[in-house]
Formats: sequence, structure tokens, C-alpha cells
Amino acid sequence: MPSKGLYARAGVDFDLAGRTKHLIAEEARKTFRPEVMADIGFFGSMFNFKGYRDPVLVSSVDGVGTKLKIAAAMNCHEGAGVDIVSHSVNDILCCGARPLYFLDYIAMGKLNTRVAVSLARGMAKACREVGMALVGGETAQMPGMYADGEYDLVGFITGVVERDEIIDGRTIKIGDVVLGLPSSGLHTNGYSLVRKIFRLDDDTAQLKVFYPELGRTLGEALLEPHRSYYNRLKPVLRMVKGIAHITGGGMIDNIPRILPDGMAIRVRRGTWEVPPIFELIRRKGRIKVDEMFNVFNMGIGMVFVASPDNTRRLIRSLPEARVIGEVIRAASEDECVLIK
Amino acid sequence: MPSKGLYARAGVDFDLAGRTKHLIAEEARKTFRPEVMADIGFFGSMFNFKGYRDPVLVSSVDGVGTKLKIAAAMNCHEGAGVDIVSHSVNDILCCGARPLYFLDYIAMGKLNTRVAVSLARGMAKACREVGMALVGGETAQMPGMYADGEYDLVGFITGVVERDEIIDGRTIKIGDVVLGLPSSGLHTNGYSLVRKIFRLDDDTAQLKVFYPELGRTLGEALLEPHRSYYNRLKPVLRMVKGIAHITGGGMIDNIPRILPDGMAIRVRRGTWEVPPIFELIRRKGRIKVDEMFNVFNMGIGMVFVASPDNTRRLIRSLPEARVIGEVIRAASEDECVLIK
Repeated sequence: MPSKGLYARAGVDFDLAGRTKHLIAEEARKTFRPEVMADIGFFGSMFNFKGYRDPVLVSSVDGVGTKLKIAAAMNCHEGAGVDIVSHSVNDILCCGARPLYFLDYIAMGKLNTRVAVSLARGMAKACREVGMALVGGETAQMPGMYADGEYDLVGFITGVVERDEIIDGRTIKIGDVVLGLPSSGLHTNGYSLVRKIFRLDDDTAQLKVFYPELGRTLGEALLEPHRSYYNRLKPVLRMVKGIAHITGGGMIDNIPRILPDGMAIRVRRGTWEVPPIFELIRRKGRIKVDEMFNVFNMGIGMVFVASPDNTRRLIRSLPEARVIGEVIRAASEDECVLIK
Repeated sequence: MPSKGLYARAGVDFDLAGRTKHLIAEEARKTFRPEVMADIGFFGSMFNFKGYRDPVLVSSVDGVGTKLKIAAAMNCHEGAGVDIVSHSVNDILCCGARPLYFLDYIAMGKLNTRVAVSLARGMAKACREVGMALVGGETAQMPGMYADGEYDLVGFITGVVERDEIIDGRTIKIGDVVLGLPSSGLHTNGYSLVRKIFRLDDDTAQLKVFYPELGRTLGEALLEPHRSYYNRLKPVLRMVKGIAHITGGGMIDNIPRILPDGMAIRVRRGTWEVPPIFELIRRKGRIKVDEMFNVFNMGIGMVFVASPDNTRRLIRSLPEARVIGEVIRAASEDECVLIK
């Protein structure tokens, strides 16, 4: 069609977009579950919703943030697809929700099929891991908005929880135990600071430096995908009173989000091993330990609160989990107090 | 908290982000409906879902595209908030779905509270117009990813349709009539081409040129918000067999998306008045008319198909609607044939 050429001169390639969509759709179809009623590409994605008593739909939207700049510099993208899905799954898990379906948004200056399909492959993989369907998305070409080789990736998740099974922290009591599950690395937070500390915008060669304590290069360690906790926590959700996903702002900002008024959480810093990547960042950036806890997850990706009576059963079911603190009366307001 | 300052040095301002979120939440709360169960800011947005027989959730994701560059150049943002909501509402309306709730994603290099709140105000306004709740979103600060003053805006919509009321074109028959509803302007498509034609990347002063045939400046005409068709079409949906939202690719690409195999649509170009903005673009870009129809909506924002028996009732209920063509047997494949 003649106008394709016309539009291509303005930096938008519709034919390439069509081929890319076809390849992305192939990845997405591998995640379909019986409720999916429309193939990729119709105006809306349709999901037949039934079998619940008093369902609450739980949705969330998030981006990968500037971890994408590391992915672009390393030219390694599948992990970013995993990142956006896992981040989203963990967010709605904080309400007790199981994932149903996912849509993505990829924006690029000039469409790069290989990158877009790598992202889709990573998303589809992480979706299948939790039984979620990747039902649609948008791949936008925005000439003049994104620098060459850079892109943004955004995810939109829909899950469900029965109304009487919502987890939101309201049953938390003073004396409850606080447990943590290990992160795989930085997950998707703290990257603007890391880029500054290692001057990655000036010199991406830093990413190729091998660090013995990491057992790999800095770039490899930084790109470690965000971990999804749904399959681990699902069997024990009935014993869990509150869940906090440790994202931007670290434990300090995220734990208070689930606490009832008048309560605080005391976290004992020595109860888990902080992975070496955080010590490397702290040393290189000359950052105080307390500050580290307000930016990074410091090795704990998910925090959950339970009655002390259930601690033993929880640890038996989740051998990786550590008791990292307890719920205390707040001195002034909801907070997360760190002690040694 | 000390680390706020630390992080601010890396270009991310958490305190400003907190204040901005607070202001956005105020706008969002004005859209809440009784099903909304969590305030803005929890890990997931919760929406109590009930009262349907055999519901199908209909979701869609989209961005505003490079119309945002015009909004940035004009420093006029509320309309972009309307754009993303209306675009999304129209997309799921093509399945017959009514809007339930909306989440947004705003990404900026350096957070600009005024811009973010303007966008939220526009989104909230367009959400209220169709009774949809703005339940959550993400405002991302991505230093080094977006140029100063530029941003991306993405929307995620969730709606619902009863399974036996899905509109997807499958009942369309040869001889059915094709109706069109007027657009308000370019809506959200064709902007990369327009930017090229008017050389807007080199000289934004072009946006301030007054054109008598437009009755306003080029910039004002280009920023006219995307129109939402939900309230207009809702009362007549039972008479409608297929709906196509005329977005990227124009009628040529979008109408065939709803046609059963073996059918085509013949559109009579003279049956509606093409707004002067399109003639201005055509003249300035020396574009063939046929090509214009493959990029722009040409004055028809929404196309729908119905039985000829219902034409009179439809026009009575929708006085703006025009019969613009009919469904014919396809010569080779599904297509949209333009005739004079």
C-alpha cells in the first residue's frame, strides 16, 4: 500500500510492525488459557471470567524503570520481559490475588523486531510460570521520543481474590512475626543510583568488569531478573496476614504500607545474608548502611507477616524464608525500625 | 530521610514524587464508584466485581503516541489525559464492552508535577464522562530516558460485556449498512507524519500559525482531544453488529478487522464532510487522497455496521451518524474499498 512508504519516511514502518506483531503473538499464544476468547490483535482482549463467589479484581501497572538502560547497553532483553511480569505478579500478590492475564506496552523510537520479540519471550515465560495469559499489548513506534536502541516496557496485570480472602494487613497484631524471602538481586529498583555510582552513562564498559565476589560481571549481576513469589507463597496464603513487595524505597518505605495504625516493625539486620552486589554498591558509592535500606531490597524481595503460632509451619513449607523481625507498638507512626 | 537526598543526586526525587502522587490521587478519587475497594497507593487496585451473568472482561492498552510531542511543545497537557482515556474506551467498545476501571502510566525524565497533575485531571474528566473509575497508576521518573519536558503516557482499561452480547462482527451480512460517527480531529493517529510535513521537530513556531480554514492555530487544531463514543453508542448497541475504531491505518486497515471472511466494505467518500484539517495536511504534504485514508481517520472516528432495517432508528437516535457505505462480497480478501 502506497501510504506505508509515505509513513515510513516519517520514521514509522507499518510492514515491520505487522511482522513484529505476528512474532509477538506467537509467543503470547503459548500462554493462553481456556478463558481467553479473542486472539491477539482485536480491538480489545477478551477473558471469560467465572467460577468465583464474590470476586475482587486486582490490577496494577508498572514499568521496569532504568534497569532497561542496562539491558539496552548489554543488548540483552529477555530478562526485562521476566522483570515486568514478576514485578506485577508480586504487586497483586500483596492483596492475596492470583494472576489471570497480562498486557504489555513496548515503546521504541525505531522498531527493533529482535528486541521486541525477546521481551515478549521473557514475558511469556514468566506468565507461563504462574499460569497467567499474555492476552494483548501495544508496540509503539515513536520516532524522536526514544534514543536509538532504547525503549520503555510497561506491564498491566489483572488478578483476582475472593473478597473474604483479601490480604491487606488489617489483621496484623503486635507480636506477629515478620518473615522475608530472598531476592535474586536488585530486582527492578535502585538502578538510577547504580548508574550514577558506576558512571554507567559515561562508560558502559564498566558493565563488563568481572568481580570475584559476584562470580560474574557487574552487568550480568545487575540484569538478574526480578523473582516472582506467587508459586512459593500460594500454598501458605491462608497463614499470611500482610505482604509487602520490597520495591522502590526499600523496606523502610514498603513495610509500613501494610501496617495498621499504631504499629511498627522491627527488622533485625543480621538475620539474613545480604548478597555481595549490595556491599559492592555500598562501598563504591560510599553509602551509609541505613541509606542502602531505603533504596535497595538488600536481599529480601518479599516480606510477609504471620502469627507466631504459624512460624514453624511456614518455614517448613518455605525453607528459604527467614524470620527477620516482629511487629511492635509504634513510638510515633507506622514505620520500619532497623536494628543490628 | 538521608537517602532521599542521595537518590535525588541521581536525578530521582522521592519527596516530589510523594507530593505529586497525593495530587494525582485527589483527581482519581473523584472518579471512584462503589466497587472500588482500595485507595490509590496500595500495591494493587481492588475492584469488587459482581452482578453479571456470564461476564467477559475486555482489556486494552494503548499510548497517546507522538501527539504528546505536540502537547509538550504547546505546554498543554490536560487534553492528552482525555486522549488516552477516550482512545481506550473506544477500543473496548468495539467488543461491546462498558468501561469499568482505568490505570495509567506516566514516564518522565525529570518529574514535573504540574504536567502530571494536568494529565491526571484530563484522565479523571474523561473517566467521569463514561462512569469509569481511575483506580491506580504509576508515575515513573526515568532520568536519562526522556528529554526535558517530554513524557510518555499509557493507559490500561478494563471493561465488561456479557458473553452473549459480545460485538465482534460475526453476524455481519452482505448488504448491511456501514455508518460513521464524526471524529473531532486527528484523534491520536498520524502525528509522526504531521510532524514531518510541518517540520515541527525543527520549528515549533509552526504550531502558532493561525489558519482561517481551521478558525484557530495549527497547534490548537492538532491538540483537539480524542472523542469518546461510548455514551452515544451505548443506547443502540443491540442494533449494532460490528464496530471499528478508526485508529492507525485509517479505515483501510481498521474496517477489515471486524469483517467475516469473504466480505468487504465499500465506503462512499462523498457521504460526509472531511474536516479542513485533513485537507490542509494533504495539501501541505502533497499526499494522495487514497493515502490519506490509510493514515488518518478523515473525519470518521468510529464505524459501525447494522442491518438496513435498523438504519432509520439508528439515525434517529444518533443524528450525527451518516450512512457511509455497505457490506459487499469481497473480490479477493476482506478489505475496505473506497469509491467516490
